[in-house]
Amino acid sequence: MPNCAANTSDSADPAADNRPIGVFDSGLGGLTVVAALRRRLPDEDILYLGDTARVPYGDKSADSIIRFARQDTGFLVGKGVKLVIAACNTVSAVALPELRRNRVGEPLLGVIDAGVRAVMGSGARRICVIGTRATVNSDAYRRALHALDRSLVVESIPCPLLVPLAEEGIVSGPLARAVFDLYLKPLRENPPEALLLGCTHYPLFIPALNKYFGGRVRIIDSAGACAEYAADYLQAHRLSAVAGKRPRYSCFVTDLPAEFQHQATRFLGSDPGRVEKIALE
Amino acid sequence: MPNCAANTSDSADPAADNRPIGVFDSGLGGLTVVAALRRRLPDEDILYLGDTARVPYGDKSADSIIRFARQDTGFLVGKGVKLVIAACNTVSAVALPELRRNRVGEPLLGVIDAGVRAVMGSGARRICVIGTRATVNSDAYRRALHALDRSLVVESIPCPLLVPLAEEGIVSGPLARAVFDLYLKPLRENPPEALLLGCTHYPLFIPALNKYFGGRVRIIDSAGACAEYAADYLQAHRLSAVAGKRPRYSCFVTDLPAEFQHQATRFLGSDPGRVEKIALE
Repeated sequence: MPNCAANTSDSADPAADNRPIGVFDSGLGGLTVVAALRRRLPDEDILYLGDTARVPYGDKSADSIIRFARQDTGFLVGKGVKLVIAACNTVSAVALPELRRNRVGEPLLGVIDAGVRAVMGSGARRICVIGTRATVNSDAYRRALHALDRSLVVESIPCPLLVPLAEEGIVSGPLARAVFDLYLKPLRENPPEALLLGCTHYPLFIPALNKYFGGRVRIIDSAGACAEYAADYLQAHRLSAVAGKRPRYSCFVTDLPAEFQHQATRFLGSDPGRVEKIALE
Repeated sequence: MPNCAANTSDSADPAADNRPIGVFDSGLGGLTVVAALRRRLPDEDILYLGDTARVPYGDKSADSIIRFARQDTGFLVGKGVKLVIAACNTVSAVALPELRRNRVGEPLLGVIDAGVRAVMGSGARRICVIGTRATVNSDAYRRALHALDRSLVVESIPCPLLVPLAEEGIVSGPLARAVFDLYLKPLRENPPEALLLGCTHYPLFIPALNKYFGGRVRIIDSAGACAEYAADYLQAHRLSAVAGKRPRYSCFVTDLPAEFQHQATRFLGSDPGRVEKIALE
């Protein structure tokens, strides 16, 4: 009777693991990963940590980002999560190798690994990655793709205005189109086979991007890819929650919980649940 | 022989004070105040502190901003400055009253006081203040103006995309115009007597804004106003450096000195001088 054990960690189903999944980002962006996880894994409890006191990470040094990511991961591990997802491209690019070397927060999945896996599964051979300046400068997507297949053609374009646009709620219309033109006009003339959204804010632009490219470019969303990756990982390691369980969602932030709650609905498409302020420093 | 004493603190001129002016901001924006100070007070040494590890302050809580501003001010005071300028609207709106109550960093000038003083001097009676969402939400400009004259008509418009635009170097052209349209279109039809730029990034848009409004709106630049205010303050308190002295400029940042040096030139219109990384936490 697995349903009787819903919402407890010591499920009657010996194969079920009802501990939550932990997801962190510097701010709001990682909520698109949470939205994808909720859709793909509707039974799973999810804890989200947004380090809103230090957002954004993208313009900080590698040393700072590694220190922040270590604190974020430590917080989630302390909450008893079964899996940590770094839903932040900057952290995935800059800090994950170091955290893994030091075995911090195992198992630890990153949004870049997930995006790269989705590209490899797509069969696309000419790929364009878009992201923040920090993510593009890190060259992490290209390096990860070329580690798997040297013959892939990988271009990267930094699109720094897309994050503030998304946070302003401008995800379509003439201004979004003017910003697409600023960064992506050459791609319309010479489209890649796949456009990889290397920033967790960018899934909000998917409808407008599809319209902009007239459906001629396959858009690979690293948030959705991350949920697929997590689903496969949980199943392979027998870590899935009991089926039919009613999920619980909590958010933790390091600053401004009310503002986070307000903006989170736009990123999640639904209520974020309880939002609690915590201290990491 | 005052010129012989140039570059020393113990000037032969008993009325001269060659200690530097200290200026701080969360990041780059305050450099527009430094640019205005360099033009208005060409003899003065200037120390600039950009808290780039924690930029931006605008989306942090009041408690965090007060703590950061106290550390920023303490650092400059420790460097022996004769005057501290909070070249950050968020700090001026949120933290300055608290810092003044606790007599931190006296004398301490804020960019809001300077902007308000310039508006009062302009004779304008219908004023529109533009700034970041945090500055507009603080209502600090309206309150400060109404404290001096209740009958002024003060409107405020948050323009959050202008900071990322300025940092991308897009300060004119069709995209800047599309962003002006997003926020300022109603002002073109019904222009105020004065438009107060309540954000230290916005002076970069002055030429494009003058064009956008067809010269029908008087633009009051709080960075320029801050330099005027400082000049008057130094003169009134006999704190000016010796005339004809060769000025020295230094910048301190809490993260990414090389990136700061690169971007600073755009904000200053000239080289920022030495940039050194320091720790505040």
